[in-house]
Amino acid sequence: MALAPIVLDSDPGLDDALALQYLLGTGLWDLKAYTAVGGNAPVEQAFRNARGLARAFGVDGDVPVHRGADRTISRVDSASDFHGPTGLGEEVLPDSKEPDQDEPAPAALVRLSREYEGELTVVATGPLTNVAAALLLDPGTAHRVRRLVFMGGAAQVPGNCTPLAEFNVWADPDAADIVVSSGIPYTMVGLDATHGWRFTHEDLARLDAAGPGQELTARFVRAYLKAYDANHRQSSCPLHDPLAVGVAADESFVTTGTGTVAVECASELGRGQTVYLPEDKAVRFNYPPHILARTRHTGRVALGTGPRDFSAHFTETLLRRPSL
Amino acid sequence: MALAPIVLDSDPGLDDALALQYLLGTGLWDLKAYTAVGGNAPVEQAFRNARGLARAFGVDGDVPVHRGADRTISRVDSASDFHGPTGLGEEVLPDSKEPDQDEPAPAALVRLSREYEGELTVVATGPLTNVAAALLLDPGTAHRVRRLVFMGGAAQVPGNCTPLAEFNVWADPDAADIVVSSGIPYTMVGLDATHGWRFTHEDLARLDAAGPGQELTARFVRAYLKAYDANHRQSSCPLHDPLAVGVAADESFVTTGTGTVAVECASELGRGQTVYLPEDKAVRFNYPPHILARTRHTGRVALGTGPRDFSAHFTETLLRRPSL
Amino acid sequence: MALAPIVLDSDPGLDDALALQYLLGTGLWDLKAYTAVGGNAPVEQAFRNARGLARAFGVDGDVPVHRGADRTISRVDSASDFHGPTGLGEEVLPDSKEPDQDEPAPAALVRLSREYEGELTVVATGPLTNVAAALLLDPGTAHRVRRLVFMGGAAQVPGNCTPLAEFNVWADPDAADIVVSSGIPYTMVGLDATHGWRFTHEDLARLDAAGPGQELTARFVRAYLKAYDANHRQSSCPLHDPLAVGVAADESFVTTGTGTVAVECASELGRGQTVYLPEDKAVRFNYPPHILARTRHTGRVALGTGPRDFSAHFTETLLRRPSL
Amino acid sequence: MALAPIVLDSDPGLDDALALQYLLGTGLWDLKAYTAVGGNAPVEQAFRNARGLARAFGVDGDVPVHRGADRTISRVDSASDFHGPTGLGEEVLPDSKEPDQDEPAPAALVRLSREYEGELTVVATGPLTNVAAALLLDPGTAHRVRRLVFMGGAAQVPGNCTPLAEFNVWADPDAADIVVSSGIPYTMVGLDATHGWRFTHEDLARLDAAGPGQELTARFVRAYLKAYDANHRQSSCPLHDPLAVGVAADESFVTTGTGTVAVECASELGRGQTVYLPEDKAVRFNYPPHILARTRHTGRVALGTGPRDFSAHFTETLLRRPSL
Repeated sequence: MALAPIVLDSDPGLDDALALQYLLGTGLWDLKAYTAVGGNAPVEQAFRNARGLARAFGVDGDVPVHRGADRTISRVDSASDFHGPTGLGEEVLPDSKEPDQDEPAPAALVRLSREYEGELTVVATGPLTNVAAALLLDPGTAHRVRRLVFMGGAAQVPGNCTPLAEFNVWADPDAADIVVSSGIPYTMVGLDATHGWRFTHEDLARLDAAGPGQELTARFVRAYLKAYDANHRQSSCPLHDPLAVGVAADESFVTTGTGTVAVECASELGRGQTVYLPEDKAVRFNYPPHILARTRHTGRVALGTGPRDFSAHFTETLLRRPSL
Repeated sequence: MALAPIVLDSDPGLDDALALQYLLGTGLWDLKAYTAVGGNAPVEQAFRNARGLARAFGVDGDVPVHRGADRTISRVDSASDFHGPTGLGEEVLPDSKEPDQDEPAPAALVRLSREYEGELTVVATGPLTNVAAALLLDPGTAHRVRRLVFMGGAAQVPGNCTPLAEFNVWADPDAADIVVSSGIPYTMVGLDATHGWRFTHEDLARLDAAGPGQELTARFVRAYLKAYDANHRQSSCPLHDPLAVGVAADESFVTTGTGTVAVECASELGRGQTVYLPEDKAVRFNYPPHILARTRHTGRVALGTGPRDFSAHFTETLLRRPSL
Repeated sequence: MALAPIVLDSDPGLDDALALQYLLGTGLWDLKAYTAVGGNAPVEQAFRNARGLARAFGVDGDVPVHRGADRTISRVDSASDFHGPTGLGEEVLPDSKEPDQDEPAPAALVRLSREYEGELTVVATGPLTNVAAALLLDPGTAHRVRRLVFMGGAAQVPGNCTPLAEFNVWADPDAADIVVSSGIPYTMVGLDATHGWRFTHEDLARLDAAGPGQELTARFVRAYLKAYDANHRQSSCPLHDPLAVGVAADESFVTTGTGTVAVECASELGRGQTVYLPEDKAVRFNYPPHILARTRHTGRVALGTGPRDFSAHFTETLLRRPSL
Repeated sequence: MALAPIVLDSDPGLDDALALQYLLGTGLWDLKAYTAVGGNAPVEQAFRNARGLARAFGVDGDVPVHRGADRTISRVDSASDFHGPTGLGEEVLPDSKEPDQDEPAPAALVRLSREYEGELTVVATGPLTNVAAALLLDPGTAHRVRRLVFMGGAAQVPGNCTPLAEFNVWADPDAADIVVSSGIPYTMVGLDATHGWRFTHEDLARLDAAGPGQELTARFVRAYLKAYDANHRQSSCPLHDPLAVGVAADESFVTTGTGTVAVECASELGRGQTVYLPEDKAVRFNYPPHILARTRHTGRVALGTGPRDFSAHFTETLLRRPSL
């Protein structure tokens, strides 16, 4: 069976790195481009990380790495140091051996949506700046992409950045709002689901025992576990970004609802909140017509963990794909 | 034991009417004023309803009824017909035999806070317009009131008016924000708790069986149950307003957290959202200093039902206090 | 001829002090109350200043001084040190010999609007917090006041606080918006007119030459001229607050237009902007219906200086009313 | 002397059509691309109009016409029928003989900024959607463009769409804000200047007298004059879009100030307002630091008409460039 074409848009980021390794490990995807966006690290650092990861995970030369927008559409300040000084903990990876791509990430997204019209999956694990820029560059992109799965938002649970907002959407709320109002077929994989599939110290022990090729991964996971312990006093870490990749292949890792997402872009208190209007209830809300008009666009929204065990599948898949 | 002085500020409203009857039935309170605010009905109608209820429940002449503000502080349109054409279903009550009070509700609140400094409880079961106007009229009111318990808001659950907002706060968000930032000691009793204590058709059967004096109450409950069935397809109704009265005497009807409430006043999407910043987590949020500065004021926020059974207590108490 | 009843609501403030002296000097008004509001100084300081000014200008005991709201309706921070450390430059006035009034300023406004229904003029020279609180306390006040003249706003000229906003409105924009949407007959005297009527060093020389009783006034004016020189490099100062008092008696000091004022309350960039919709043009604007609906309330808006020379009249009037 | 490379980004639009003719008539520019954006007409209509104008003015085949974004960045509704049913009055032009360009307008802008780095002028006479999308696609564009001159905004005069906002900025305020905060060297040519240079019936008589080749132009002007008469009761029309082209070659058609422009994107009342912070006054404003931080980017802002007579130059230039 031919592998399905996919683009991974990412702001690596520790769990973004795991998401790449996992994606490659599934053996399901033909990764057409790995595009960097600012978020967990500024875009230039994210781009360097992405190039280093392409090399570390053995796709250097096969998968072009594109630099994305170096500013957000929302013109907000969204620095985060959760992922450590380099965005990959303290890891500084050897650079890719390939020359820099000239083509900016949004242009690559548009081009690939033409080349693989109706077939291309896009998984975005950072702020949606690049995807939104692609939709502004060529709105037809919305109708040529098979499905966009993005990690971001919080539909019915609190945020992780403010009580209302999840980091990726908070970091560029206008970008997220452009995406969910574009008509692109999307699945939002937010904290409602990602907080439920976790990686534990027992899982880490399996990586450690796996021998050569998992040392880098283990370092990423250790830094990530440490950040969750320090910031949230949690002894395991959620599989935010990998889950979005998982859902792109199999939605049974989550339960979903269908409805409209509206992103709060104007209020400082609510910035980045993903307001979820379930399809069957939207008409009952006391909203003015111009807000209710948004319900003409709907998407699928992950509302919890699903029947298939993602945590188990994730660790098994990593083990299948050691780094070089 | 001397009864404790209390003011009930209300927008009757079907469950507001039940809240009055329940308050009188507890035998715990000396009701110093019954003040009307616009909400479930426009203020003039709410005032007429309040006068009629004072007569129907046998306190005409003993409890002065004051008319409140006829406009909201937020200058928003907030009409609702959930409570039927008169706000008390279709009920038109005989008017009080007393002349109209000249003193507006906010002035009465301020005066009573002076007369019963350190002792006065205020229970508000409608939009917080009158309470906020009292705080603007004389900010010292915040420090003279023993405790304000208000029915309103939704801390960790969806709203009933929009996905984010509960009706009372949505109807005058600026009023609510003035109150929670005033320094008044408050307990917010919102949907997190009120949706958990319900009145059922079995409870109604007890009223019907109770004989003379519960017919009016039974009509109110029937209209209210009908509205919940029609609008939400629920066969029981939440005891929103009565619960606030109950909590004023005994907080064990609910579980509470301590933290700061910030009300969304600026955004159309978020209008009326009560953002809850738990005391022990607030510093971790990615909010600018001027928002974090609000955490100098905290209150108690009902987060769920408590150990003591309010539904049972409510029905028993009603039975002790028939209408005339 | 009987003098016309008036209330002066003020945040003294250097030019507020001049406004009081000017008002008394005109011999046209029966000053029923002098009410203090926070603005140029915090409310407690403004109240102390007002009491001192009542004594200094010889109305102690005749004119009750009322303390106003100690918080704004907008819950914004609006400190200013333009008027010096005491709000009256460095002046510390001997206190009034009268006991403190218990009645808060908004209550006094409501009461006087009843006592002098259809006759009472209100001049407000500070933020509109007290006037708005009175309108919330008893909205009928709007229809009992003959006219409100307020110093504030900027209709067709830049602000003095931000490029868009004048200080009094910027300091409590929600209060201003409550007032202009209340139905009260109002004249807004903003920077469009006040920047045109100025006080010069030549005028100051006339005060200095006038002998006993103008020393205090001369000190106020010197401090005010100095602040304009230091902050705006202007060698004369505008007669902001006195002009509002002047216009209350004779609108020919200004030219006016009729239209609707809408105040920006939500945006940080625009906070306090007084958007002027001229009566004859409002329907042509690309505004949604809920904004256009505000045009049912109109007021008179000063758009420039008028034919009668206010600067000359002001200095002459001061000379007629020395301080004690 | 080699002609200077330029891109004209336009939403034709009657005065946009005149701007193209004028640009070609100056003989100063090598028009590298003519890009269409939605505004005076929806983007598809604007694109068709642009193709027709390219043919009518004799550059079909020489100047590629690119289709722009079919949605705004601000996700606002901004329909206008000021320019008649086709956007060119009632004119339906024969289509270009060239095939449609595949390359979207923002991509063409980015490409040309690379090909003519440091040399390329961009003139935008519609909403800034395409320019902003180019800056998101490749932010380096800001540093490769020699200068952007855009028609839009109102710095110190009222708007034409609301009292605060000019149409082009109102139609996509986020796009405008992205542009002015991007670091691109820009000159804003707004209503402060464009309302001063007008086209009169006398000028029209000169076109009519000019004989063959000005009939189309005369029809455009007649429709435009008629719209100004009908909507604003003005007997002449401002040369909005042509002036921006003029200023790109010679700034002496206007007077300018240097400062920062901040665009109101959040408030319904202020939407599209271009707040001008003059370079030498910005620090004095009572704005929070995150707003004052914007002053690191400045541009030139036309504040009035300049010494050189644009109206005369415009008509003379048109006469030099008849349509086919």
